[in-house]
Amino acid sequence: MERAAHPGDPTIAELGESAVLGRILPRLAPGDAALLGAGDDAAVVAAADGRFVVTTDLLVHGPDFRLAWSTPFDLGWKAAATNLTDVAAMGARPTALVVAIAVPPTMPVTVLEGIADGLREGLAALAPGAGVVGGDLSASTVLTIAVTAFGDLEGRAPVLRSGAVPGDVVAHAGARGDAARGLALLFDAGTDAAGEPDPVRAADVRAQYPRLVGAQLAPQPPVSAGVAAARAGATAMLDVSDGLARDARRIAEASGVDLDFVGAALGPDLRVALAGAEDHGLLATFPAGASVPEPFEVVGSVVAGTGGVLVDGRPVGSDGWDPYSGWDGRAG
Amino acid sequence: MERAAHPGDPTIAELGESAVLGRILPRLAPGDAALLGAGDDAAVVAAADGRFVVTTDLLVHGPDFRLAWSTPFDLGWKAAATNLTDVAAMGARPTALVVAIAVPPTMPVTVLEGIADGLREGLAALAPGAGVVGGDLSASTVLTIAVTAFGDLEGRAPVLRSGAVPGDVVAHAGARGDAARGLALLFDAGTDAAGEPDPVRAADVRAQYPRLVGAQLAPQPPVSAGVAAARAGATAMLDVSDGLARDARRIAEASGVDLDFVGAALGPDLRVALAGAEDHGLLATFPAGASVPEPFEVVGSVVAGTGGVLVDGRPVGSDGWDPYSGWDGRAG
Repeated sequence: MERAAHPGDPTIAELGESAVLGRILPRLAPGDAALLGAGDDAAVVAAADGRFVVTTDLLVHGPDFRLAWSTPFDLGWKAAATNLTDVAAMGARPTALVVAIAVPPTMPVTVLEGIADGLREGLAALAPGAGVVGGDLSASTVLTIAVTAFGDLEGRAPVLRSGAVPGDVVAHAGARGDAARGLALLFDAGTDAAGEPDPVRAADVRAQYPRLVGAQLAPQPPVSAGVAAARAGATAMLDVSDGLARDARRIAEASGVDLDFVGAALGPDLRVALAGAEDHGLLATFPAGASVPEPFEVVGSVVAGTGGVLVDGRPVGSDGWDPYSGWDGRAG
Repeated sequence: MERAAHPGDPTIAELGESAVLGRILPRLAPGDAALLGAGDDAAVVAAADGRFVVTTDLLVHGPDFRLAWSTPFDLGWKAAATNLTDVAAMGARPTALVVAIAVPPTMPVTVLEGIADGLREGLAALAPGAGVVGGDLSASTVLTIAVTAFGDLEGRAPVLRSGAVPGDVVAHAGARGDAARGLALLFDAGTDAAGEPDPVRAADVRAQYPRLVGAQLAPQPPVSAGVAAARAGATAMLDVSDGLARDARRIAEASGVDLDFVGAALGPDLRVALAGAEDHGLLATFPAGASVPEPFEVVGSVVAGTGGVLVDGRPVGSDGWDPYSGWDGRAG
């Protein structure tokens, strides 16, 4: 994870905290909701309807990303994208982020600049008007990015996981399995002879399969579809981060129903569509007869049940991502 | 940092994510401001006056704490205390926290339970009514705690660093140098022959100097004094995390004034009072004639200047804590 510093590319330790902040903060905008941005003990953010939505997420080098595969820009982009999707899944409009980063002091400051650029561009693309209102910079041997994201419900009730009722349609917006396919490509062909992530091979794989590898490293979730779903009367919604089968079960269990997918609607590779993690699409249920907004596609229906997931009426097992199972601790 | 698991004390990997959450979440209360707590994609928090205060902070094993010195309860307490103080320093009442933790899978789940207990008790003691509304659990080789804290300005303007004017009095609430004295005791006598943190020796030092070592490991900052200062008309305020001299300079620079301390008011050891970091007291300025609220003590005055810090009229140098300087990367 450590790199030799070049002339003109000093390390974080060489620059010191305040000079580092002086190079990062100008790359970030506080956004429309910031009443007071970075620079004091805390920021002040507008919450026009008297409530705010909040979600937090840690990205850790090793289990969550590898610098041999992701550029710093990718990391910033993905950190923004995944948290924005959690806000969107409540039916809220994302307003702001705070970002705390722990970084090895020997790392070039350009890595932090790249992360900041990715945060800024991810916000601009996925949640225009939202910005970074504050943050923290710490030292660690393991690059770690903690993002907390905020959203505005604009007077609406939050869309929970628990509101699906039999007769609702099940709809999905976003990729189905692309991020998992991209990760499989990276593990297959983006590693060296010893199985360790290799930046040159990874760049080759990405050039060959830009859509699939991009879906893993810098996903483009349908963030604005969250508000559209809430306005259309969505009865339940969540961010599909652990795979469609596992996340559908969360709605089914919270709502006390079964979700029955139409297999043919999920795409050509049913197994990857159901099991593939990290797509960060939105899975929602709508009343029968509701006008399901773009880019949602109807992929099934809610039926009476007790927390099960079905495909064409037949139960399927859960399959997903547990951060503690199968992790071998490689720091890649 | 890794411990052998005992029967009845399984590791996080052995239990798996959802069982771990099942043991942690019941130990935490969402607090009075939580409209929707943990369990969905995001939480919903009340922001009665249409704004919220937000601050975020990362605590990293090694530079920020050592498990050989701090109990898990201490870590949770300190993570709450330091963030609550940043909220208080804006003149806001703390309402809620979100907490993201990255933890080695080989760590006993009792460590996370202890952190949760410390968070709960720290909140109950320092900010009654505030709670933990959400979080995240990740895997890392380095134990890392990211806290984001929220506060309610209750209709008041935030108290910034930039509002001090000549003629104001300078007042301080909280310890002056105790946390630094406690840390020095731990480095002096809480280490083994090789200079590495040693839990048995550290426990001995703590038993001998409970107040000073406690000030370092589980500080008790004057959180409620933040609102009291705002109500009393404080013109500037901040959390003293990097030492009185360094943090006083931040007010002086932001306000375009000098802060002149009365040396005798700072206690018997002026050097430690000025340089000692991590006390998390509140430094504030008030208009001359304002009724300075308890437990603030008047310790100086604001004079015309250009960002300087004086003691009895004589300039003093800055001295404080830069997380990247002098850190040797030991993981303790």
